[in-house]
Amino acid sequence: MLELRQTVEATTDQEKKALQHVQEALSHAAVRPEAAAFLIGPREERIALPEPLFRILRQAAAMLSHGHRVTLAPVDKELSTQEAADLLN
Amino acid sequence: MLELRQTVEATTDQEKKALQHVQEALSHAAVRPEAAAFLIGPREERIALPEPLFRILRQAAAMLSHGHRVTLAPVDKELSTQEAADLLN
Repeated sequence: MLELRQTVEATTDQEKKALQHVQEALSHAAVRPEAAAFLIGPREERIALPEPLFRILRQAAAMLSHGHRVTLAPVDKELSTQEAADLLN
Repeated sequence: MLELRQTVEATTDQEKKALQHVQEALSHAAVRPEAAAFLIGPREERIALPEPLFRILRQAAAMLSHGHRVTLAPVDKELSTQEAADLLN
């Protein structure tokens, strides 16, 4: 299986501080996640984060802001070569 | 070690569609990630996503929109009971 595991960590104090800020914003947002996290699209439009992505984001912010390295990986099945290419590009 | 693994997946077609939209926005944003992903704080302020979090978000969106379950977990060391409580609350 191709390796699509992504491992990240906060490397500077500045990054840890930013992550704590994010974590705080996300904990305030627990009640209304759809109003708390969005992306800005190519035409400056707001795109809400779907719930599974929001959960990953919140957990990652919590772990990273505590100084942990975290890893993200697919769990269920192998990827086709085409899928892997799409994901890695 | 306490289990802080988070596993999520897109469960509906609507969610997969939303995730594809997010993935598209994120791929456009690859050049200027700091301009593409924000959270809204409790006082409606924009909070930029730190880079490690942005990378997790992009990879998660790519995998989830292809229908994969993904799992996020700490990789390097055990958590203290207090840290686990903070993360799980």
